[in-house]
Amino acid sequence: MKRYKAVVTYKGTKFSGWQRQKREESIQGLIEHGFKKIFNKTIDIKASGRTDSKVHALSQTISFDIDTKISACSIKNALNSTLKRYDVYIKNLSIAKTSFHPRYDAKGKIYRYLLSSKFSPFLKNLVWFIHTDINIVQMKKASEYLIGEHDFSSFCSTGNSVKSFVREIYWIKIKKEKFTIDPNIKLISIEICASGFLYKMARTIVGTLVDVGKGRRAPEEVKNILEEKDRNKASQTAPGSGLYLKRVFYKPL
Amino acid sequence: MKRYKAVVTYKGTKFSGWQRQKREESIQGLIEHGFKKIFNKTIDIKASGRTDSKVHALSQTISFDIDTKISACSIKNALNSTLKRYDVYIKNLSIAKTSFHPRYDAKGKIYRYLLSSKFSPFLKNLVWFIHTDINIVQMKKASEYLIGEHDFSSFCSTGNSVKSFVREIYWIKIKKEKFTIDPNIKLISIEICASGFLYKMARTIVGTLVDVGKGRRAPEEVKNILEEKDRNKASQTAPGSGLYLKRVFYKPL
Repeated sequence: MKRYKAVVTYKGTKFSGWQRQKREESIQGLIEHGFKKIFNKTIDIKASGRTDSKVHALSQTISFDIDTKISACSIKNALNSTLKRYDVYIKNLSIAKTSFHPRYDAKGKIYRYLLSSKFSPFLKNLVWFIHTDINIVQMKKASEYLIGEHDFSSFCSTGNSVKSFVREIYWIKIKKEKFTIDPNIKLISIEICASGFLYKMARTIVGTLVDVGKGRRAPEEVKNILEEKDRNKASQTAPGSGLYLKRVFYKPL
Repeated sequence: MKRYKAVVTYKGTKFSGWQRQKREESIQGLIEHGFKKIFNKTIDIKASGRTDSKVHALSQTISFDIDTKISACSIKNALNSTLKRYDVYIKNLSIAKTSFHPRYDAKGKIYRYLLSSKFSPFLKNLVWFIHTDINIVQMKKASEYLIGEHDFSSFCSTGNSVKSFVREIYWIKIKKEKFTIDPNIKLISIEICASGFLYKMARTIVGTLVDVGKGRRAPEEVKNILEEKDRNKASQTAPGSGLYLKRVFYKPL
């Protein structure tokens, strides 16, 4: 039996999320179904963490065990051919240490979020359309209060049972970026690098920063929101369609 | 009766092309159908030119005549609400001179083409996947032979009846660009600005430049291809999915 590590990218639009569901199409279910076709047996896949409905991944790390003589490269190609019709693609696949675990070994993650003030058919399901200009200088000020080790209870939705709400945010980068498909459109990207993310934490941070960017809240409020440790103090959760799991890292940054 | 000018963007994937077709969905047909719903009459739309099946537009200019008291802004919003489910969006709409014609008045156009050597689900139907690295320095050399006024017969597919095959290419820009959705992916953009484009001219130029970039042809060959005035001398036509009508301009550059 060998353990494999793979990096997968997916467009989350048509999926109920990462995790296998009985009646809905999930990314985990789709990949497991592909393995069933190739090896004619059930292979359990582990991921660095779940992603919600409509959330995308640029690089999600997964692992699984197979007893086979087929090369890693051939497994990758066979799997991709089962996924061809879908919006899921295995970027690379290799043999890992038998102890490797994509979730427990992860040292942190980077999430990317995209906002657009202009509509474009090329951005459907890929950004949060905010229909107004926003002040990124104010958003940057607000984001500085989040850097470091904090109890992020105010930025965590109920629905998972974690022991601690303490996480460390290493950095947050907020930038204007030209949209490559249509360079007339400028997007705003928000990237958050942290030791780990609580349930809906990235999207609650984005929702709050957008309220600051719109002038609805002052940047300094973020400090109070953190201190209150109450989810009701933060803003609405930003939609899943604008969120991308950009990278999971396994060595300290 | 007033004449209106509008700028429309569309993702061409699901369409048979710009031009109205009896049995297939076209962008022209869809917009005319929207007008029928709003005004309960048939309104004929003119465009700066047709785009082929699967070809996109960032800014296609169109015109039409309507006898109405409804404001341009309200017409735009009403039309966009009929188009909401589709990949077509009216960016702006205003009253034009009664003599305005989007095709005859055009002084030139810019086409944009996108290539990717890496697959990504976020690029499906939006680029030409070339699965190999290509040399853009060689492509730039080759493109220089195309600049200026030439007979572009070698770069024109049969299928339209034009009087002259002479067009002027003002410039061609070839660049590597980070893909905003997934910054790990570098795309190659090719932009061509010309007085006008013959049938499939932009895509035949791209097909030929890609052959040069792959080392299959020398840059100097482009000079001979032009001189031969024979479509068989140029390379294959690049797929429609990578092509974008970027801009139609009505004042000399």
